Amino acid sequence: MAKIPYKTYLTEEEMPKQWYNIRADMKEQHDPLLNPGTLQPLATEDLYPVFCEELCKQEMDSTTRYIDIPEQILDYYKTFRPSPLIRAYHLEKALGTPAKIYFKFEGNNTSGSHKLNAAAAMAYYAKEQGLKSLTTETGAGQWGTALSMACAYFGLDLTVFMVKVSFNQKPFRKAVMETYGAKIIPSPSDTTQVGRAMLANDPNTGGSLGCAISEAIELSMGDDNCRYALGSVLNQVLLHQSIIGLESKIAMEKLGEYPDVVIGCAGGGSNLGGLMSAFMQDKLTGKSNARFIAVEPASCPSMTRGKYAYDFCDTGKITPLARMYTLGSDFMPSPNHAGGLRYHGMSPILSKLYHDKYLEAISVDQNKVFDAATMFCKLEQILPAPESSHAIYGAIQEALKCKETGEAKTILFGLTGTGYFDMPAYMQYNEGKMTDYIPTDADLQRGFDGLPKVD
Amino acid sequence: MAKIPYKTYLTEEEMPKQWYNIRADMKEQHDPLLNPGTLQPLATEDLYPVFCEELCKQEMDSTTRYIDIPEQILDYYKTFRPSPLIRAYHLEKALGTPAKIYFKFEGNNTSGSHKLNAAAAMAYYAKEQGLKSLTTETGAGQWGTALSMACAYFGLDLTVFMVKVSFNQKPFRKAVMETYGAKIIPSPSDTTQVGRAMLANDPNTGGSLGCAISEAIELSMGDDNCRYALGSVLNQVLLHQSIIGLESKIAMEKLGEYPDVVIGCAGGGSNLGGLMSAFMQDKLTGKSNARFIAVEPASCPSMTRGKYAYDFCDTGKITPLARMYTLGSDFMPSPNHAGGLRYHGMSPILSKLYHDKYLEAISVDQNKVFDAATMFCKLEQILPAPESSHAIYGAIQEALKCKETGEAKTILFGLTGTGYFDMPAYMQYNEGKMTDYIPTDADLQRGFDGLPKVD
Repeated sequence: MAKIPYKTYLTEEEMPKQWYNIRADMKEQHDPLLNPGTLQPLATEDLYPVFCEELCKQEMDSTTRYIDIPEQILDYYKTFRPSPLIRAYHLEKALGTPAKIYFKFEGNNTSGSHKLNAAAAMAYYAKEQGLKSLTTETGAGQWGTALSMACAYFGLDLTVFMVKVSFNQKPFRKAVMETYGAKIIPSPSDTTQVGRAMLANDPNTGGSLGCAISEAIELSMGDDNCRYALGSVLNQVLLHQSIIGLESKIAMEKLGEYPDVVIGCAGGGSNLGGLMSAFMQDKLTGKSNARFIAVEPASCPSMTRGKYAYDFCDTGKITPLARMYTLGSDFMPSPNHAGGLRYHGMSPILSKLYHDKYLEAISVDQNKVFDAATMFCKLEQILPAPESSHAIYGAIQEALKCKETGEAKTILFGLTGTGYFDMPAYMQYNEGKMTDYIPTDADLQRGFDGLPKVD
Repeated sequence: MAKIPYKTYLTEEEMPKQWYNIRADMKEQHDPLLNPGTLQPLATEDLYPVFCEELCKQEMDSTTRYIDIPEQILDYYKTFRPSPLIRAYHLEKALGTPAKIYFKFEGNNTSGSHKLNAAAAMAYYAKEQGLKSLTTETGAGQWGTALSMACAYFGLDLTVFMVKVSFNQKPFRKAVMETYGAKIIPSPSDTTQVGRAMLANDPNTGGSLGCAISEAIELSMGDDNCRYALGSVLNQVLLHQSIIGLESKIAMEKLGEYPDVVIGCAGGGSNLGGLMSAFMQDKLTGKSNARFIAVEPASCPSMTRGKYAYDFCDTGKITPLARMYTLGSDFMPSPNHAGGLRYHGMSPILSKLYHDKYLEAISVDQNKVFDAATMFCKLEQILPAPESSHAIYGAIQEALKCKETGEAKTILFGLTGTGYFDMPAYMQYNEGKMTDYIPTDADLQRGFDGLPKVD
């Protein structure tokens, strides 16, 4: 066989034309979303005030295995897809591992991350429904940038609530979103009830993703031509992100490869859920015995140290309840945690798969993450996002295990994005000033104490 | 014929294995480099104290048409090449033009630009010669980042003199270079004689590329294990950048296309020289009648308003003299000019081709550049570097002419890079605060008065 190329791109004809809905192959579904007032399962229509109708249907659809990607989204995908599957030859050599390491690189677009895959769908369906605008939140900024880009492309207005600590740290992220025409508000803000209450409680708060979600939903609920869009956690997001795994699988098939281990960083689960989808299908249907590993920050360890329980998806406690691994919607990671992956919960689908032992999880502190990031950027020449670097760390660990055992395993990890807007964190690390805060059991207990009483 | 895809990538097998030396096909060569003391033509050996020997040979070689790209550079190229040739369908539609617009996008790498093509060669040959370190200068930061990446990959130390105005405006550019292990010094600095003299003359100067070049050369001259590397202007740089045009030509051939017009931004000429190379060969050999257009900033108009004369390549007047279009080595563009393209001269090869009417040139003020950039980023979804946006502006002008005449011309332009580290300039533009300073004839005369007396 010819030597495997450094990068493998699909042709535009080879690109997947359908998303894959992993729920259709899960033996058990995750527990239903609940109305927080009645504690009764939510109907699809109950979500219509919040999301576009088509997205609500996708959110609740656990049976349709493949869903056609609309032509206009396929066209839009071509502006930044296919993404390359890259063989990390230089990393392999430096580690001296017999393992073959591949990564799917989703950062070659202006949002700098995989988030654009889902943003595309949200903007498209909003336009199709005749809406004029969307609202959303952003933490590290990738999601806000992605939705700004998609809204500019499809012709929608967008308001982004940006977690205040990021708003202050990342003026250039804000400037990118504004260049695409979005309006950016630091959260908590005085433009919403939720925001005003948060500020009254702590005027100096740096904000949280959960609070920014509450504000974005509150603003959208007041305007019939507006809906809310969320970039992670949701089933619809995992559906749209399935393009990552589908492309990866086609590319690996072309190379005669199949992963023994699939590794992704996990904040809300959008990337790992998408990357692993097509491979997890094989595992769910008994065709593969691959391992799947979620890597999360030690400072926000929703799977490794969280509870599997019903919880709100936001800090303001205005969303439906989802059963998921959670640290409690009041939990806020320490502000010295860099980048994203600071959400208190985890995708209900990923939570269920983790609970049912299809998926493993590890956590890592951020100095080790930046060790991995810095090693990777010199070898593979891509400066990774802090989030993505969690997956690099996980892949290196697995490759080093192979070095010990002599096994030539095939490792696939998701390189979700680039770190060009995360340089303050790299500067901290380069200067030896990076710290981390790993929550104590008492810290976590405070979050668990706030969980709604459902079970 | 099938519809032309949005993006065309070559396979790794299709990637060029040789650089193309345009001098081998030029009917007349540019005038020789001169020793500034004796005013005699320079011998290849005279350059050995400054550059690696192999690069000196390439610099002076006007006859070898194709030069093999060393295997290790080909391997390195695969970390960021091939770059896509993209059909700007969305821009065409928005302009309502019958023209077909293509762009070669060189920004999908961490340096954010085409500069890595030449940096790869400079680091490789330095390593081959057994050197330990390189010095260079950087203005907007792309070149410094590119050389930092290549030096990290090939295992060399690097000192970068960064023009002070950029050093202050772009702390994150500095951080990227440092993450790759480079040492960054703001220029002018007190570490060199040239720098100290500049500071004595004007302690508040923002610096210039010409001065940073002088400092980098001075530092390298004091260390026998160190040489200097320059990212533009030189013949060797155009040679290494020829990969851009060679790839573009192969990709266009696959699509059954050939450009009627080739457009690039021009500061020192590295990108345009590389992009146009393979197509200019056809023009020089009578096989094509394509037009070639350099787009330069109105604030630093070396071709459109400069003199074709012998001049120093640096402000410190320590380099050989090159005959080129120049504003005088004392010329400094206004600090309110964003991004790069602020060099006082122009590649001797491009200068000669311009002088001999193979190449046209236009200049544009930066508000119009950012109008084009903002339009492009919403339509084609890539946030372009200010430098690259000069070429976008040029392409839009040509496409609008086609709209008037009804001609379905094929336009190819170079999108040299991304603007992720140029957000302060976008913020100025977004806030309506962007200004420009177009030099008066008297301003230019002051630069011309400083030209060395040779002719």
